[in-house]
Amino acid sequence: MSYLVFIEFLAVIVSSIYGVLLAARKGMDVVGVFAVAFAVAFGGGTLRDLFLDRTPLFWIGNPHYPAITLGIAILSGVILRFIRHIRPLLLVPDAVGMALFTLTGTGFAIEAGVHPFIACLLGVITGTFGGVLGDMICNEVPSLFRPSPLNATCSFAGAWVYWGMLEWGGFAESYALLGGLVVIVATRLAAVKWNWCFPGIRDPGGSSET
Amino acid sequence: MSYLVFIEFLAVIVSSIYGVLLAARKGMDVVGVFAVAFAVAFGGGTLRDLFLDRTPLFWIGNPHYPAITLGIAILSGVILRFIRHIRPLLLVPDAVGMALFTLTGTGFAIEAGVHPFIACLLGVITGTFGGVLGDMICNEVPSLFRPSPLNATCSFAGAWVYWGMLEWGGFAESYALLGGLVVIVATRLAAVKWNWCFPGIRDPGGSSET
Amino acid sequence: MSYLVFIEFLAVIVSSIYGVLLAARKGMDVVGVFAVAFAVAFGGGTLRDLFLDRTPLFWIGNPHYPAITLGIAILSGVILRFIRHIRPLLLVPDAVGMALFTLTGTGFAIEAGVHPFIACLLGVITGTFGGVLGDMICNEVPSLFRPSPLNATCSFAGAWVYWGMLEWGGFAESYALLGGLVVIVATRLAAVKWNWCFPGIRDPGGSSET
Repeated sequence: MSYLVFIEFLAVIVSSIYGVLLAARKGMDVVGVFAVAFAVAFGGGTLRDLFLDRTPLFWIGNPHYPAITLGIAILSGVILRFIRHIRPLLLVPDAVGMALFTLTGTGFAIEAGVHPFIACLLGVITGTFGGVLGDMICNEVPSLFRPSPLNATCSFAGAWVYWGMLEWGGFAESYALLGGLVVIVATRLAAVKWNWCFPGIRDPGGSSET
Repeated sequence: MSYLVFIEFLAVIVSSIYGVLLAARKGMDVVGVFAVAFAVAFGGGTLRDLFLDRTPLFWIGNPHYPAITLGIAILSGVILRFIRHIRPLLLVPDAVGMALFTLTGTGFAIEAGVHPFIACLLGVITGTFGGVLGDMICNEVPSLFRPSPLNATCSFAGAWVYWGMLEWGGFAESYALLGGLVVIVATRLAAVKWNWCFPGIRDPGGSSET
Repeated sequence: MSYLVFIEFLAVIVSSIYGVLLAARKGMDVVGVFAVAFAVAFGGGTLRDLFLDRTPLFWIGNPHYPAITLGIAILSGVILRFIRHIRPLLLVPDAVGMALFTLTGTGFAIEAGVHPFIACLLGVITGTFGGVLGDMICNEVPSLFRPSPLNATCSFAGAWVYWGMLEWGGFAESYALLGGLVVIVATRLAAVKWNWCFPGIRDPGGSSET
């Protein structure tokens, strides 16, 4: 089994947990929780597979993936009754899930022979789209597009680290994946902790009518 | 002609009517009405065809489908002037359109040889995505994600009934389709009438900051 | 090089500029600006390629396209500091970008042998979806769906003009493309200037509860 498939397996589990927590905060029922977890865990990879023309889609070819998501959604109905504050639990699964999906997007794109810049872009899309979908379903402004800590930037940086270690550095795939993972998770957690932001490229001018 | 193609034909008509009513309630012009009807009638099936890698897309291979939607949108400009309350008219086309598209999604997925659990999931996606798109264009919170009566659940149950009658029960396809259709429409109408809901898996905690 | 590929190249440049201006108005950082520009410039064409089953996607097969968008986003960080009012600058790139992408959508669909009505519909989808995505990311109600000046209608009319000149009129492709372009841009600018609108097909009835 390729390392990328194992990474994808982990990504599905971690992102399902993140999706379940996201939906549970909103007081959704078990169907809503599954819908959000499904969108978070499979949204990014579905775009990746459609864009790279990979068939069948990873969750159609691996029917145990959605089954795992369903299991996590049902389990959460029991476990989450005993947990008071969900918000602090969101951070790590968010960062790790984004990191893992970024790596699968970049990796499968490299395998398909696309240009490295495009491979890293596909990594970012794969890593972030699930979270955007989850936010949209939960009716929040997607945090990716708020002036918030460096979501896509961390993902993009880690994708380049992975690609660089693999293609330039001559590292084994496992080390390159680990390198990318550490970079994304570490920079993302640091960005949230110290609230790193880029400046706006321009003041919004005090009004949206400028 | 396969039964599934006939079901799809009906689904396009019913969903177009639902989309037109949805858009007319918002006072849209004829282009907006067509856009909403198009999104409602073709959104779910387009995802289905992309996910199952079916080409050409059903509305590209059947150019009379969008022409039917256009005809319904134009006709509605005459008919709807004489109708005062649109809201009560929405319920049945919504339920029937969702049921028919669910069956096409499940059926084409079974034909493509995917796992039954995935086939039923694809049925739910095919059945509900059009309505979600329509709600988004009309700038409403998609009713699928509000704590509302069992939309996706009815669709999922009917998909299993269809699959079970076809694969386990040995029924002819026409009976299995009819069985699934009746289950979805009946449970959906009952859920709206008696306001069946699942409980949230967790209180939202009085604030969204938990 | 086919004329359509050249039109697509121009469409990417113009739409990237439009996306950058759109995002800059909202005070986004450079990553947000790139994300919006990417969505505006590649959203419509991506749907077109997925719907027509063209592989690889145009921005995966042409990695310099996203690189151009990135360059425009970075440059804008310098240039836009000296520009006070962005709003008046939005109109022309919006109209021209929509026109160019409409023509690529219609043209590639004709090449793929689809029915002319569907080809024109695909043109409209290709031409307008990028702008809808950009508005959604900037958290505005997509202007396509507001009762606003004839966005999709201009696009649809120009697609028919292009098709008619090419298939009926026997014009060379370059003239047909120019004809479609002029029709879309002229009608769109006129529609905005004189605020042309279609009437709603029905009064919304004073309340959304009708």
